[in-house]
Amino acid sequence: MSKQTEKRDFPVGQTRRYLEPGPIVLVSSRWQGATNIMTLGWHTILEFSPSLVGLMISGGNHSFHMIRSSRECVINLPTTKLTDTVVGIGNTSGAEIDKFARFGLTAEKAHEVEAPMIGECHASFECRLHDDVLVDRYNFFIFEVVKAHVAASPKHPRTLHYTGDGVFMVSGEIISRRSLFKPEMLG
Amino acid sequence: MSKQTEKRDFPVGQTRRYLEPGPIVLVSSRWQGATNIMTLGWHTILEFSPSLVGLMISGGNHSFHMIRSSRECVINLPTTKLTDTVVGIGNTSGAEIDKFARFGLTAEKAHEVEAPMIGECHASFECRLHDDVLVDRYNFFIFEVVKAHVAASPKHPRTLHYTGDGVFMVSGEIISRRSLFKPEMLG
Repeated sequence: MSKQTEKRDFPVGQTRRYLEPGPIVLVSSRWQGATNIMTLGWHTILEFSPSLVGLMISGGNHSFHMIRSSRECVINLPTTKLTDTVVGIGNTSGAEIDKFARFGLTAEKAHEVEAPMIGECHASFECRLHDDVLVDRYNFFIFEVVKAHVAASPKHPRTLHYTGDGVFMVSGEIISRRSLFKPEMLG
Repeated sequence: MSKQTEKRDFPVGQTRRYLEPGPIVLVSSRWQGATNIMTLGWHTILEFSPSLVGLMISGGNHSFHMIRSSRECVINLPTTKLTDTVVGIGNTSGAEIDKFARFGLTAEKAHEVEAPMIGECHASFECRLHDDVLVDRYNFFIFEVVKAHVAASPKHPRTLHYTGDGVFMVSGEIISRRSLFKPEMLG
């Protein structure tokens, strides 16, 4: 399997840097001694400070009840070296298998939450439930990112972006238009 | 400016095909005879049927009140041929200028809503407000896509994905793992 990635502390207010481009993420959880991982593509940044992220977690997922009960999770950012793992995690249920064991992933201890971080991912965002007002109606959880860990390099990881139907777009060219932005729009 | 793109009807239930990968979008609106456009990166798919999309529209935008009042908008998908237009729209306010005129964009009549579609974009998703329960607290609007229009080609448009700080990631390589998916996970 892939090697673990050494990560550094990262400012939670800049979580958008990695999630706003829309990558597929792996959401890890822990509840009553068991851990689980799910593949998720339906998420959005909601606020810089507090650092809020919204996740739509379908009720059919084994992770749904674990995350709802523990009120915590870790959002992990996989890169293309984990493509087949991402698909495998999305194709299996934590009700039947231990996903860390099955996919050879390392459960690293997080700092602020009980849910484990995935050592092989490029970044991990530790999250606490901030607001569950839309969970009953839309399975939409609003989390606060309370601690962030990101690998120092590469600066622009090759992330996976799902289009449905088994097809992914891989992140491509990086272009800057910084010179065209008003100063107050940057940072 | 860019040429208008000829678009065809597209199934609203497959809106995720274009929005789940996380592109920057241009949101157009109309209220009391005036039109406007804003650049937006904070969105997520929420449901296939009805076809629901959540948008975080910051209250500082001129578009906020127009969309809140009209309860409608169009989500338009720009490609890299509109990169500088996307930045320009994000850097200016509809309180001061007519964005269609300033940026040489074509306001096309939509079918189901009064808000105009942007002719030069690759796709346009006509939206009606479905639920405003999170608008006061998070500026988060839940829309239903009621009609969709997508250009027949290219199949995988070069979309823009914002990372903050004036830097965009452009959509890259397309890879299929369709053969690894369980049938019920496809479609």
